[in-house]
Amino acid sequence: MDKLKAYVIGATGLVGQRYVQLLAEHPWFELVGVAASERSAGKKYGEINWVLETPMPERAAELKIDKLDVDAVPKVDVVFSALPSEVAAKVEPELAKRGYLVVSNSSNMRLEPDVPLIIPEVNPDDLALIREQRARRGWSGAVLKKPNCSTTILDLPLKPILDEFGVSRIHVATMQAVTGAGYSGVPSVAIIDNLIPYIKGEEEKIVNESKKIFKRDLEIYATTTRVPVLDGHTEVVYVDTVKDFDVEAVVEAMAKFRGLPQELGLPTAPPQPVVPVAGVDRPQPRLDRMAGRGMSVVVGRVRRLGPKKLAFVALGHNTIRGAAGNAVLAAELLIKSDYY
Amino acid sequence: MDKLKAYVIGATGLVGQRYVQLLAEHPWFELVGVAASERSAGKKYGEINWVLETPMPERAAELKIDKLDVDAVPKVDVVFSALPSEVAAKVEPELAKRGYLVVSNSSNMRLEPDVPLIIPEVNPDDLALIREQRARRGWSGAVLKKPNCSTTILDLPLKPILDEFGVSRIHVATMQAVTGAGYSGVPSVAIIDNLIPYIKGEEEKIVNESKKIFKRDLEIYATTTRVPVLDGHTEVVYVDTVKDFDVEAVVEAMAKFRGLPQELGLPTAPPQPVVPVAGVDRPQPRLDRMAGRGMSVVVGRVRRLGPKKLAFVALGHNTIRGAAGNAVLAAELLIKSDYY
Amino acid sequence: MDKLKAYVIGATGLVGQRYVQLLAEHPWFELVGVAASERSAGKKYGEINWVLETPMPERAAELKIDKLDVDAVPKVDVVFSALPSEVAAKVEPELAKRGYLVVSNSSNMRLEPDVPLIIPEVNPDDLALIREQRARRGWSGAVLKKPNCSTTILDLPLKPILDEFGVSRIHVATMQAVTGAGYSGVPSVAIIDNLIPYIKGEEEKIVNESKKIFKRDLEIYATTTRVPVLDGHTEVVYVDTVKDFDVEAVVEAMAKFRGLPQELGLPTAPPQPVVPVAGVDRPQPRLDRMAGRGMSVVVGRVRRLGPKKLAFVALGHNTIRGAAGNAVLAAELLIKSDYY
Amino acid sequence: MDKLKAYVIGATGLVGQRYVQLLAEHPWFELVGVAASERSAGKKYGEINWVLETPMPERAAELKIDKLDVDAVPKVDVVFSALPSEVAAKVEPELAKRGYLVVSNSSNMRLEPDVPLIIPEVNPDDLALIREQRARRGWSGAVLKKPNCSTTILDLPLKPILDEFGVSRIHVATMQAVTGAGYSGVPSVAIIDNLIPYIKGEEEKIVNESKKIFKRDLEIYATTTRVPVLDGHTEVVYVDTVKDFDVEAVVEAMAKFRGLPQELGLPTAPPQPVVPVAGVDRPQPRLDRMAGRGMSVVVGRVRRLGPKKLAFVALGHNTIRGAAGNAVLAAELLIKSDYY
Repeated sequence: MDKLKAYVIGATGLVGQRYVQLLAEHPWFELVGVAASERSAGKKYGEINWVLETPMPERAAELKIDKLDVDAVPKVDVVFSALPSEVAAKVEPELAKRGYLVVSNSSNMRLEPDVPLIIPEVNPDDLALIREQRARRGWSGAVLKKPNCSTTILDLPLKPILDEFGVSRIHVATMQAVTGAGYSGVPSVAIIDNLIPYIKGEEEKIVNESKKIFKRDLEIYATTTRVPVLDGHTEVVYVDTVKDFDVEAVVEAMAKFRGLPQELGLPTAPPQPVVPVAGVDRPQPRLDRMAGRGMSVVVGRVRRLGPKKLAFVALGHNTIRGAAGNAVLAAELLIKSDYY
Repeated sequence: MDKLKAYVIGATGLVGQRYVQLLAEHPWFELVGVAASERSAGKKYGEINWVLETPMPERAAELKIDKLDVDAVPKVDVVFSALPSEVAAKVEPELAKRGYLVVSNSSNMRLEPDVPLIIPEVNPDDLALIREQRARRGWSGAVLKKPNCSTTILDLPLKPILDEFGVSRIHVATMQAVTGAGYSGVPSVAIIDNLIPYIKGEEEKIVNESKKIFKRDLEIYATTTRVPVLDGHTEVVYVDTVKDFDVEAVVEAMAKFRGLPQELGLPTAPPQPVVPVAGVDRPQPRLDRMAGRGMSVVVGRVRRLGPKKLAFVALGHNTIRGAAGNAVLAAELLIKSDYY
Repeated sequence: MDKLKAYVIGATGLVGQRYVQLLAEHPWFELVGVAASERSAGKKYGEINWVLETPMPERAAELKIDKLDVDAVPKVDVVFSALPSEVAAKVEPELAKRGYLVVSNSSNMRLEPDVPLIIPEVNPDDLALIREQRARRGWSGAVLKKPNCSTTILDLPLKPILDEFGVSRIHVATMQAVTGAGYSGVPSVAIIDNLIPYIKGEEEKIVNESKKIFKRDLEIYATTTRVPVLDGHTEVVYVDTVKDFDVEAVVEAMAKFRGLPQELGLPTAPPQPVVPVAGVDRPQPRLDRMAGRGMSVVVGRVRRLGPKKLAFVALGHNTIRGAAGNAVLAAELLIKSDYY
Repeated sequence: MDKLKAYVIGATGLVGQRYVQLLAEHPWFELVGVAASERSAGKKYGEINWVLETPMPERAAELKIDKLDVDAVPKVDVVFSALPSEVAAKVEPELAKRGYLVVSNSSNMRLEPDVPLIIPEVNPDDLALIREQRARRGWSGAVLKKPNCSTTILDLPLKPILDEFGVSRIHVATMQAVTGAGYSGVPSVAIIDNLIPYIKGEEEKIVNESKKIFKRDLEIYATTTRVPVLDGHTEVVYVDTVKDFDVEAVVEAMAKFRGLPQELGLPTAPPQPVVPVAGVDRPQPRLDRMAGRGMSVVVGRVRRLGPKKLAFVALGHNTIRGAAGNAVLAAELLIKSDYY
């Protein structure tokens, strides 16, 4: 097929850079433009402070950065958004009204009932909300959201457990990477030889987004912390299951779990969305975050601490599966769906 | 009173250095000697690789390091041990047999029923086990243990909650400092830009030692992790209480909690063993670990997540309250007790 | 004597906090007030984000933060400034005009010929420039500057070498702590598992300030870098001397070096401004930055690499000797001088 | 051509892992076996603690680890050695005597006059020493060395400067990554919030190896330090040139520099051995170490500080170009030479 035109708004931040990295060499998309705030507008993309671990894709370096302006977005097939939420709250509905498909990382609108909040392997059917959204709002475009990074990294391994053993209660403690707060979000003075046991709004997001994604009133208790790690959120998870289990069965359920993206062979879909890892001291951010090219959640330390009492540690790449990668995968799913 | 003679075995490691730091200027003790393995024996203490954040006490620098030998330990009032557990398992009983009072950081013998495992503010009465220990083993000396660092940092804030509200279940996830593994325990290659979600034997220690300390069959679920922090263990704690509570009452119970060491005015006792901290993003290791000169556990993020569902974050200095400081405080308590 | 009244402007930043820490318990000064930008004005000082390694002095916590306003500064004996340089450039001359003695950390005015740029042990006589400053500018007050942190840490050990052996050329490479850039100066994403071989304006400061301080056209080549260290700047220094030397003589010259602050017994003066350290792998920031309560520069690895070719490594605490501590010491010197 | 058989000794350490990573998918080599010390012998390679940032190559995981034994090394075309130097000193000559071509990372023998010490772009002709080595020692095999990591990262950018402008004197200060000391070489307690201004033997290696490589009595002054960076050595370099220069000419000389590996199109040769980088604050380890897949040295901050006074900062990946990668490239060169 002809390549679909993609445009990234909020393209200079960490999530914006991941979008560019993923889209610049994507088999379905052609990255035709990028937009950012006034500060960067007019520069070449190659001039920004690129901070990912591999060089900037050459074709991206040549793009001129547009000043973000809803009236000046070119005609494209998908707009990927990594705007700050307060900016997104104004810009994204305007774009959807003008007919754009907006696939967004920003936290605004996530909990609105007619907005799909998609982990493609977990709740692909929620794409159908787009129909309701268009009807209700009179939009020709649409806004599609991906969940918070910590939510996604929790909910992916929860899905097979929920399906096979049932879940009655969850306690989670996260240890999140500094890139989750954006480039300037965590000063080095604040985090070297230190950790911060609080991330504003994050615990509510885990609880409320998971309830929406699983469509049930899950009992979730969450504490979120920031640690001196660059990429990769780690989550200590305790699950009270409905049926008892043995560890092997849980590991197998995770290892065998596949979703619609795998069935459809979507380009950004990892072969295995949840990867149980060998090694008593795994998963570890630096060693496991790139599993499935950053799209797999790696799970270790699966233990049965008592009857119906499961514990494990999950890890995922916060700016790939937790952000831009999940959004791109959701866009791929959308393109193959009836709502495109 | 005349100063009591103290001797430190295992004096060159991180906990040994903390013992020396605390004892060299202690009002009750005179540090008369130190012993270590063959590698350091014969050197002056001033020649070792001192790695604490303040200079070595001058009077310690002049001590000659003895080779550890049960037959050559001088006549002293208390022997403080920071030996590796497998060495301690041989040396400590021999010393107790020969009449020494051994106050030990090592993990051997902690769960033996006639061995006091003491957090002085929590279970001071367990010192009475010394009588049983002597009777049963025919020792004129005794072995007194302090718990694992993570156990102590958890059990101190649990004590007032247990007393006032009751505790039916605990979920804990720790984020522990690298000094907890000793000077060479965690290679930098293993922990920069990383964390390790496993510490050998640590989870069992938290569970089993807490049961012994509180003398009840507590339902505790623990996951222990290592993070790139130098000093200070942080613990995310969820407590199911027996009676419901409001947050202010919990904070007040913690703030008002005092133990026998405070009543007796023991020199190493902090004014407040558990310190609730203001600031939504506290406690933090670098900012709070030195509270009460490293002897207080700092608690923050106290929340009521539902009926009888308490959450908080606790932090303590792992080599002071979690190790040498707790041992010195236990020794002070012992000296004031009937068992000395 | 009655205590002198001190006032800190720019009191909430890292250097401001060090001023407060040093002044709150100073034998000569009473800290009577603090001022900051609009954002903090009106709060109690105890409410700010205090990030030093020891608790905030209690008497400081009670101070109300004034909004910085040249017309509202109370009548005090010394104003200590830690303002951003562009703000300082406006505020400090105004204060001096109104009769205040301003002792400042900010980089504005440092190179103006009638402004003393003081390392108290190195160029105390330059205080006499105050007379010229007042005459020329018609001020009743005065502005006194301390040099850049890296300059001070280099020039202190250079002084005894210059005096005894002469210096014909210097090559220096610095490894500077993140606190040198202020609390938010270096994002954690920029420096974890990384270093940055550039600090804006820093190399010029080392060269130009050292020439002013030593009053000669020194040949200095400087490269400045930022490393993931919280406190303590380390400098690799090569000195071509005029006379040949042996290593022992250099070490002795450094160890014996004393200045006017030591002679006068100034309260903030360390017993030894330059401390040669034993240990082949020293100085190290975490182990040596608090030498002389942060006021000594620690020197190690003193080597003779060839005839008249000296190499050493110097380390100093960047926000104490490199900033607030040096300013307080300069103020003490001023108070004992004819220019007060 | 048929693939050449390669064997790695010392295969489980950090440099051994890099060899395996580079050889497992090499177009010329087939990795037929790996050997290590007794501790790992008998295991599958897939069971070791693999700590590189990308997953272990699948074909390597299946190899059984041999116990290192000179009498049991299979018949292969090249043996790559990453042994500890004291082991290498015994093993490597024995292997060469038995006819093996040993390409080695270990520091033994590097300065012996009949041992080639090769940076393939700098001194490829020194391969000819193999002839002398065989003649003198009566070996049918040979030992080929690559230099110390810091030497290689310095000498690559020096080469075009030396060729075009001449070099009369060099001052260098390094900031080296922790992986340079091996997996357990630098404890985390020693390096978090710290740096260590000393690396045993490293300064002498830079000086003596560079003299051998450039075959002249270069005046080099070196100070080597360890910083909390995982991979990538950074070097601050001052060069006194023989002819004066302008910065553009130096940058161009570096950018255009090519060696025999580039001419021959060797598989591990980067397109550009020395890459000048744009960006005033570059090179940075995390952003630049993977340039040329870890085989390029990246240079920034090229400055003219005075007549004939050049300064720059160089950065290279210490375990790729600094170790295994340079050795593999040297082996490729050897294979294309007359000495194979």
